[in-house]
Amino acid sequence: MLVKHGVISALTRSTSHSPSSSSSTVLRRQQFLVRTLCASKTHLPKLIRAMSSTSEADAESVLRTVTPSLDPKRHKGQAGKIAVIGGCREYTGAPYFAAISALKIGADLSHVFCTKDAAPVIKSYSPELIVHPVLEESYTISQFSEEEKRKVQDKVIGEVDKWMERFDCLVIGPGLGRDPFLLECVSKIMLLAKKSNVPFVVDGDGLFLVTNSIDLVKSYPLAVLTPNVNEYKRLVQKVLNCEVDEEKAEDQLRSLAKQIGGVTILRKGKSDLISNGEIVKSVSIYGSPRRCGGQGDILSGSVAVFLSWAQQLKSDPESPSESPVILGCIAASGLLRKAASLAFTKHKRSTLTSDIIECLGKSLEDICPAS
Amino acid sequence: MLVKHGVISALTRSTSHSPSSSSSTVLRRQQFLVRTLCASKTHLPKLIRAMSSTSEADAESVLRTVTPSLDPKRHKGQAGKIAVIGGCREYTGAPYFAAISALKIGADLSHVFCTKDAAPVIKSYSPELIVHPVLEESYTISQFSEEEKRKVQDKVIGEVDKWMERFDCLVIGPGLGRDPFLLECVSKIMLLAKKSNVPFVVDGDGLFLVTNSIDLVKSYPLAVLTPNVNEYKRLVQKVLNCEVDEEKAEDQLRSLAKQIGGVTILRKGKSDLISNGEIVKSVSIYGSPRRCGGQGDILSGSVAVFLSWAQQLKSDPESPSESPVILGCIAASGLLRKAASLAFTKHKRSTLTSDIIECLGKSLEDICPAS
Repeated sequence: MLVKHGVISALTRSTSHSPSSSSSTVLRRQQFLVRTLCASKTHLPKLIRAMSSTSEADAESVLRTVTPSLDPKRHKGQAGKIAVIGGCREYTGAPYFAAISALKIGADLSHVFCTKDAAPVIKSYSPELIVHPVLEESYTISQFSEEEKRKVQDKVIGEVDKWMERFDCLVIGPGLGRDPFLLECVSKIMLLAKKSNVPFVVDGDGLFLVTNSIDLVKSYPLAVLTPNVNEYKRLVQKVLNCEVDEEKAEDQLRSLAKQIGGVTILRKGKSDLISNGEIVKSVSIYGSPRRCGGQGDILSGSVAVFLSWAQQLKSDPESPSESPVILGCIAASGLLRKAASLAFTKHKRSTLTSDIIECLGKSLEDICPAS
Repeated sequence: MLVKHGVISALTRSTSHSPSSSSSTVLRRQQFLVRTLCASKTHLPKLIRAMSSTSEADAESVLRTVTPSLDPKRHKGQAGKIAVIGGCREYTGAPYFAAISALKIGADLSHVFCTKDAAPVIKSYSPELIVHPVLEESYTISQFSEEEKRKVQDKVIGEVDKWMERFDCLVIGPGLGRDPFLLECVSKIMLLAKKSNVPFVVDGDGLFLVTNSIDLVKSYPLAVLTPNVNEYKRLVQKVLNCEVDEEKAEDQLRSLAKQIGGVTILRKGKSDLISNGEIVKSVSIYGSPRRCGGQGDILSGSVAVFLSWAQQLKSDPESPSESPVILGCIAASGLLRKAASLAFTKHKRSTLTSDIIECLGKSLEDICPAS
């Protein structure tokens, strides 16, 4: 287990005795970790307690609580710096969708770390993204010796590591593919993120990786998994060694999250179910009947932003800030559903993921006006 | 110091005795240089004198003064030819933002000089730009001997040099990256620009280069530096050997600009502060509370255009043309803030840099109608 109780109490002491140093990124992350752990172990704040089954009004309330006011005194980066790890020769749309969604919601900077082949394409989708062509797939190193391969891996990890401390949250998996060499590098990137207490959202092929190597996320309280129907099925089979039981959906989700040591799972479906092994929340706002590919990428990018914002909330004991990971999931689920509904009203059967992304801003503004 | 007093008086004599030759590019640049130097050394024109602290009305007034009327008799190029030096394997959005902003404000031609990897991507953002794939990064020449590297460098410099005389202003730095070989080439491009009296705006990684080699811009009166909070901090530490003092912000900025021999510094912040070591101006028009990455690139491209326009103003002693660099900075700062405000009204939290660029034209038209 990455964070032990001794470590937690040491962190609690350290942060409570030095409030003035909260501007330090490292300390801020430690405080976030402590708050997240305390929320899941002790009491539930007011807002969360009221939501035994999250209704539309509650998701909107969470969105209003989590979304920061826009202060002209703030400078670039303070509204969120997100990085997506994904994008390979085969897939380029998914990491773009996740990264651009983060910006459209209000993050300041959105990076993508992808393979060399994917980079020019992802860059060309939008000049707003910062795209790093650093990942490698097996076919580019097939002639290399084991030592040369290790050197390439070290280089890949180094390229991501030099940026790690700057990020508020990672999204790992959109359009990642399943190349063994690439996935091995991504495993190491997860370890780096945990070492720096950087939260991460795992989706798509990142879930394939995690399902086969559950220790990568086990007991890391700042990990969020966002499985769809099939990805959830494989997780349940692998971790709980049984089939999905829809009649006991909430209990089974809670058990699954508990079994993985208290990570947060956002199970996508007709209603989204969210659990960290202690509580279970649902978001059932009506979205859209369109199931075009890419909506999961919007969700993962959105969770990253809202989770980052939730960790910035003041640690007032009456505020909901003690459970930023759960709050981030509720906010993201609620906003995606609102935006999908608005896009469907406009575009009907021809609604695409890009149309939903274009509705993120208006949907957030309707719930939580910027001024 | 590049321009000595003897040279200035010689130039003054030459231009005052041969007004008919003002169409020559070289002579026009010399006149511009003289006007800039005279403005900072002798008297301040009416408009500038009135602006002890630039208010919204003053920035609008400068915009109206600097923006040329549209004359159907003019031909391509006369409204401004701008070149951006930037764009590498990692960054492609920034040079695009700077270059397209120049066109959207009203420049006739906008070039980008970038690396071979960046060129196809930047070209794909817009067919309006002329993109030259001429810069090289270390990784493409890592196997070369020292002599071969020198030949590559000579080739890069040659490719830029053959265009230099045509440009009214360069923007050096957006998305440049920090590759040592590339930065060495860019140092030489700065020397070329100075030799030809071509003004340049330094931003982003160009400021990283200049902060470490301050002689590159020292005493060049046609250089503009546009640092953000962090870039300004590093400049102050390096040049003044102290920390930023917010209580003496204006005096410190003046000292910094003076210490670098009278370059103009546009310090970006809640209010933009502008100084050439003699006067200090501020632009405080309300912009937008969004701090998404890329807004600095709009500013650098805009300064280049307005500075070019300011140098075309008639040298009427009552006109503000004697201080074109300062005027260019005030105009650019004012317009960006107006455009950001308009974009934020439309897009709220989801406002991105591209949205602000789309508002440049309307914002300028509102202040200074084309007909």
